Amino acid sequence: MSAPIARPSGRAPDALRALSFIRQFTRHAEGSVLVTMGDTRVLCTASVLDKLPPHKKGSGEGWLTAEYGMLPRSTHTRSDREAARGKQSGRTQEIQRLIGRSLRAVVDLKKLGERTLHIDCDVLQADGGTRCASICGAYVAVADAIDWLVREGKLAETPLTDSIAAVSVGVYQGQPVLDLDYIEDSDCDTDMNVVMTGSGGIVEVQGTAEGTPFSRATLEALLDLATAGIAQITAVQRQVLAS
Amino acid sequence: MSAPIARPSGRAPDALRALSFIRQFTRHAEGSVLVTMGDTRVLCTASVLDKLPPHKKGSGEGWLTAEYGMLPRSTHTRSDREAARGKQSGRTQEIQRLIGRSLRAVVDLKKLGERTLHIDCDVLQADGGTRCASICGAYVAVADAIDWLVREGKLAETPLTDSIAAVSVGVYQGQPVLDLDYIEDSDCDTDMNVVMTGSGGIVEVQGTAEGTPFSRATLEALLDLATAGIAQITAVQRQVLAS
Amino acid sequence: MSAPIARPSGRAPDALRALSFIRQFTRHAEGSVLVTMGDTRVLCTASVLDKLPPHKKGSGEGWLTAEYGMLPRSTHTRSDREAARGKQSGRTQEIQRLIGRSLRAVVDLKKLGERTLHIDCDVLQADGGTRCASICGAYVAVADAIDWLVREGKLAETPLTDSIAAVSVGVYQGQPVLDLDYIEDSDCDTDMNVVMTGSGGIVEVQGTAEGTPFSRATLEALLDLATAGIAQITAVQRQVLAS
Amino acid sequence: MSAPIARPSGRAPDALRALSFIRQFTRHAEGSVLVTMGDTRVLCTASVLDKLPPHKKGSGEGWLTAEYGMLPRSTHTRSDREAARGKQSGRTQEIQRLIGRSLRAVVDLKKLGERTLHIDCDVLQADGGTRCASICGAYVAVADAIDWLVREGKLAETPLTDSIAAVSVGVYQGQPVLDLDYIEDSDCDTDMNVVMTGSGGIVEVQGTAEGTPFSRATLEALLDLATAGIAQITAVQRQVLAS
Amino acid sequence: MSAPIARPSGRAPDALRALSFIRQFTRHAEGSVLVTMGDTRVLCTASVLDKLPPHKKGSGEGWLTAEYGMLPRSTHTRSDREAARGKQSGRTQEIQRLIGRSLRAVVDLKKLGERTLHIDCDVLQADGGTRCASICGAYVAVADAIDWLVREGKLAETPLTDSIAAVSVGVYQGQPVLDLDYIEDSDCDTDMNVVMTGSGGIVEVQGTAEGTPFSRATLEALLDLATAGIAQITAVQRQVLAS
Amino acid sequence: MSAPIARPSGRAPDALRALSFIRQFTRHAEGSVLVTMGDTRVLCTASVLDKLPPHKKGSGEGWLTAEYGMLPRSTHTRSDREAARGKQSGRTQEIQRLIGRSLRAVVDLKKLGERTLHIDCDVLQADGGTRCASICGAYVAVADAIDWLVREGKLAETPLTDSIAAVSVGVYQGQPVLDLDYIEDSDCDTDMNVVMTGSGGIVEVQGTAEGTPFSRATLEALLDLATAGIAQITAVQRQVLAS
Repeated sequence: MSAPIARPSGRAPDALRALSFIRQFTRHAEGSVLVTMGDTRVLCTASVLDKLPPHKKGSGEGWLTAEYGMLPRSTHTRSDREAARGKQSGRTQEIQRLIGRSLRAVVDLKKLGERTLHIDCDVLQADGGTRCASICGAYVAVADAIDWLVREGKLAETPLTDSIAAVSVGVYQGQPVLDLDYIEDSDCDTDMNVVMTGSGGIVEVQGTAEGTPFSRATLEALLDLATAGIAQITAVQRQVLAS
Repeated sequence: MSAPIARPSGRAPDALRALSFIRQFTRHAEGSVLVTMGDTRVLCTASVLDKLPPHKKGSGEGWLTAEYGMLPRSTHTRSDREAARGKQSGRTQEIQRLIGRSLRAVVDLKKLGERTLHIDCDVLQADGGTRCASICGAYVAVADAIDWLVREGKLAETPLTDSIAAVSVGVYQGQPVLDLDYIEDSDCDTDMNVVMTGSGGIVEVQGTAEGTPFSRATLEALLDLATAGIAQITAVQRQVLAS
Repeated sequence: MSAPIARPSGRAPDALRALSFIRQFTRHAEGSVLVTMGDTRVLCTASVLDKLPPHKKGSGEGWLTAEYGMLPRSTHTRSDREAARGKQSGRTQEIQRLIGRSLRAVVDLKKLGERTLHIDCDVLQADGGTRCASICGAYVAVADAIDWLVREGKLAETPLTDSIAAVSVGVYQGQPVLDLDYIEDSDCDTDMNVVMTGSGGIVEVQGTAEGTPFSRATLEALLDLATAGIAQITAVQRQVLAS
Repeated sequence: MSAPIARPSGRAPDALRALSFIRQFTRHAEGSVLVTMGDTRVLCTASVLDKLPPHKKGSGEGWLTAEYGMLPRSTHTRSDREAARGKQSGRTQEIQRLIGRSLRAVVDLKKLGERTLHIDCDVLQADGGTRCASICGAYVAVADAIDWLVREGKLAETPLTDSIAAVSVGVYQGQPVLDLDYIEDSDCDTDMNVVMTGSGGIVEVQGTAEGTPFSRATLEALLDLATAGIAQITAVQRQVLAS
Repeated sequence: MSAPIARPSGRAPDALRALSFIRQFTRHAEGSVLVTMGDTRVLCTASVLDKLPPHKKGSGEGWLTAEYGMLPRSTHTRSDREAARGKQSGRTQEIQRLIGRSLRAVVDLKKLGERTLHIDCDVLQADGGTRCASICGAYVAVADAIDWLVREGKLAETPLTDSIAAVSVGVYQGQPVLDLDYIEDSDCDTDMNVVMTGSGGIVEVQGTAEGTPFSRATLEALLDLATAGIAQITAVQRQVLAS
Repeated sequence: MSAPIARPSGRAPDALRALSFIRQFTRHAEGSVLVTMGDTRVLCTASVLDKLPPHKKGSGEGWLTAEYGMLPRSTHTRSDREAARGKQSGRTQEIQRLIGRSLRAVVDLKKLGERTLHIDCDVLQADGGTRCASICGAYVAVADAIDWLVREGKLAETPLTDSIAAVSVGVYQGQPVLDLDYIEDSDCDTDMNVVMTGSGGIVEVQGTAEGTPFSRATLEALLDLATAGIAQITAVQRQVLAS
């Protein structure tokens, strides 16, 4: 695929940003991963809690939930601290619900036992795609936390049914491109986040026309780009977890 | 399209529920519409306000925003009143952000002048699909409010660039179906909301695997169903606004 | 009683506005009534909940409580949504406490059993007198909910001891008048809400001088008007429930 | 009036509790009064603020508003601190709205100038009737604050048009009685608060049947008791302000 | 110690303000003390509650906690009411945590039994040093509440291990001075609060340089002043409790 | 100084933990420093904002303020996210006020110009001493932000008047020790935080007896330890900023 337009980063339209995962980034959480996608850096922790939310008590199943936050100066200009304002924004709640749903798609809650996996994704530095980076990093953190449960003898077998990853795609100056950074994201007609499993099943598709509505053909092109991108991310996740 | 499974409502897989719009349902709002989709009933009002949010002040442009709420007993079992709990749920915020984005896709804010169109969607009775019904009804309410602005001589020409409608689709017992009611929605593997303009442009696609991830083929089938459904809704909207 | 002044609506000083009750206006609540008093329209639902507030647990008695809200554009100019502001106003709390007290005056909580009747009064369109309309409509909704409890065999006999209704009276341009609409209410010296049972017992009297204090003689004249008005409302309530 | 029943306090049915006002109880407020009605003690301050709420800005008029609170251990058992719970109860808001309305009835806001009289009523010790004691004490504090404005040359003439006082009446064991204390209030069928000016005009009447509804005759008897009680309170207020 | 500078109050550098304690200031609390330090007046109550916070349940121990508030017009200019603003300020929380820690230093929670001593310190009039006055007064209120527990036979022996008092010291115009009033406090380079037991043990030292940092020598001088001041306060506390 | 007791970490009583500062840890903030004290790691950013809080507007001076937070799983067991709970704890507010006061002690606000230095200290990993680490790191971040202001030509000269650092000291098993880690802190009789400038001036002393009160002699020993510790930290800060 050759690009008629130049991306600000110089990347090819179907090129991911540099991607890495640092496991055991902090020492208290059962899973703790710093994920880097270009200049976006998110600390993802997975905590094993011996408690359940009310709607799961006595169900014999476990639960997985997620929270998301941005450090006030992770962004170009300082944002208000949500704890100081006294509430989480609609955007924050939307993202943390997405992270939770995505991870639940690959965890068999029946096999998890009566405990909660509580994911925290905190953005240390933002340059676009923080929700996708959060999902990618959270998967590695959850894998580590489940490994810990198995090693500790608290679980006989893993409740993980697949891997999960997410990537953004969009139309930048008329060109479908993969893995938008902040500059592209701010100047983008169409923006789509795709969450897929390692075996290629679709878990979430969220596409939004920022200005002009988009056509079915554009949607297809974006899905193609995303599918290829997620395959690459999945490969990195596997490699990192194997090491 | 013939259905191997029976829908609880007896509808064909590609059949919408009964759809109607009652304009001028209440008398104070510049646009006020009761939309009915099967047993889902939402009161959508569009208010013209001579003020702007801070980020639009002095921009020469207008703004459009939306709020959403459910009456406590619009649902099968009574839900807590959000005003009494002191905050809006993540779901509420997600929906009202979606309604606002969808309507902004067909309103040229530059032509709206320095005023706000404030949409309120309040669910009187819920039976699935309240966010889609809200978007469909809000469009008619906005059209009426803009008509009022033109009739009053406050606008020389309409800032509306197209119509907008939304519908849910999903996979019910293995079968892609259109316009889910509550029973189907509760027992659905995949759930997707699609927002499209009258001329067929896609504004939002939000698909979620509730259990098993879904395939690209399923996604395509659902998009086909949604496209056909939205064309029908658009026809009803046009007819209602022409009367 | 002959009126030296003309009311904006052309009504006689002792004339109620058009009054009607639509039962089963929504389908989920055990009692659901749309009450109309002139241009004021309130949706009143009565929900049967199998739970009790802490101060009633283990008492062998039931409880009845009420909540009240106005849709943002039920009023001439749009009001802020209380759920978005994060708290209910003092006025809202005052009204919902009044509705609850009024209905409890005609329900024998000992006979209700260990359950809660939760009333919700949501104003769809406001033109003065919303708290009185709420009480009148809530009574019909409660009667329907109790009927449902009896029909379902959950109660052997009705805990209702009487009917209840409310009406506003005030001094408009020196003339005591019944059932104020918004225009009269805004330009009124004295405003009084009276809640009485069907058999004529007084449950609440709330009179306020908006400007000049009022005399005992005025108070008596207003009480006479209210007593006659409530007798008419009671007759309509009986007729509606008998049908 | 001879009483067939004995009041717990031994008072005659038409007897007030011991009533006193200590002016300048604290030194910072322009008016600061400790009012004592039996065992109820409320600190009422009136502060002169050189600012106006938004709805009064540029009106050429002043404003008067009131806030009310109970110290956590002013009551028999400790109540939660509202500042710690993060919101004021419905009861608190109802009372502070009543205090504000009552005082505004005797202050000509046009003559007050563009400033706010901010009343604070804080209950140090509660034994029934705290809202009535607050109104009685707030009047003396407001009179002192207005005196200060005149003495300082900020006002040429007083905006006070009358005095104001409040008292509770109720039916205790079948007997109408004046100025209920906590024991009577807790065991009372009907409870009414009456606010009247020094010249006998009625400003507020709030009567509530706690159990059985009450008759018009009872209402009249209670109003007679209240009228006589307020005349006595007015006399004490005059004497205190004259000293 | 001779003073080269004159304090606004005319006091010697090592002189306390007039100090008094009125016990049983209100009648409902088990301990209720009005403490006066110059023009600072704080009502301190100690309530005995038969409940424990979650972290103490089943521990066999008791708990002691404190809350602090200022009446809105206790200060020179009116402050917002924290209950109306919906949250306690950082300063309020800091002070109430300090009061709780200080009192816990002299109460043996094991001997208190499974109950809570809940202290409330409400400032009626502020002129500097409200947190220190609160601690001094709270000690007397706690002593009275514990006395009540012993008299009622609920405790066999006192859990009090010592007395506790607090005082502020600071550098005013270059001179270390004891027990700052508001004028001194506002114009002070260094401000230190010291909490000590009756037997001379240090419980808290909180020193802050408001402008220029201070030297170790200054710190020593301030500690000397505070030690002498607390000895005097302790003597008054003993005398008051002995009477 | 020889230690009769062994510290859990094996350190000498007067030994700091490993201390390091990574400058430019994130790229958006004008100053961004990851400070590491043993296993405690705090990300400190200093943001230059072209706005002022209300109380500084028009003063010709600048302002410096600080906020503090802990990532939910920075601790041994997961803590609730303050943004989700809707308020900052008393502890958080106490710490962020301390950080702000400490830094203001070495910044000449008159020379800063009409802008705000907004410090954010976010704990990535906690092992005791997070408030001291925050102050130490914030100083380096502020120095970098001020350097940026000077380099950009927005300031002619630095408003920094000195450096600032903080350290905790305490009595562990009877032995005064420097720079407590979490294990020592949890099992400590006396805990003191000391904030001093590079030239040895004291800015804050906050000592608390957790159990038994402490003597003046202990206080002196702790101050000696802290003074020596801060001298070492100051040396590292200078070296880091010189590189």
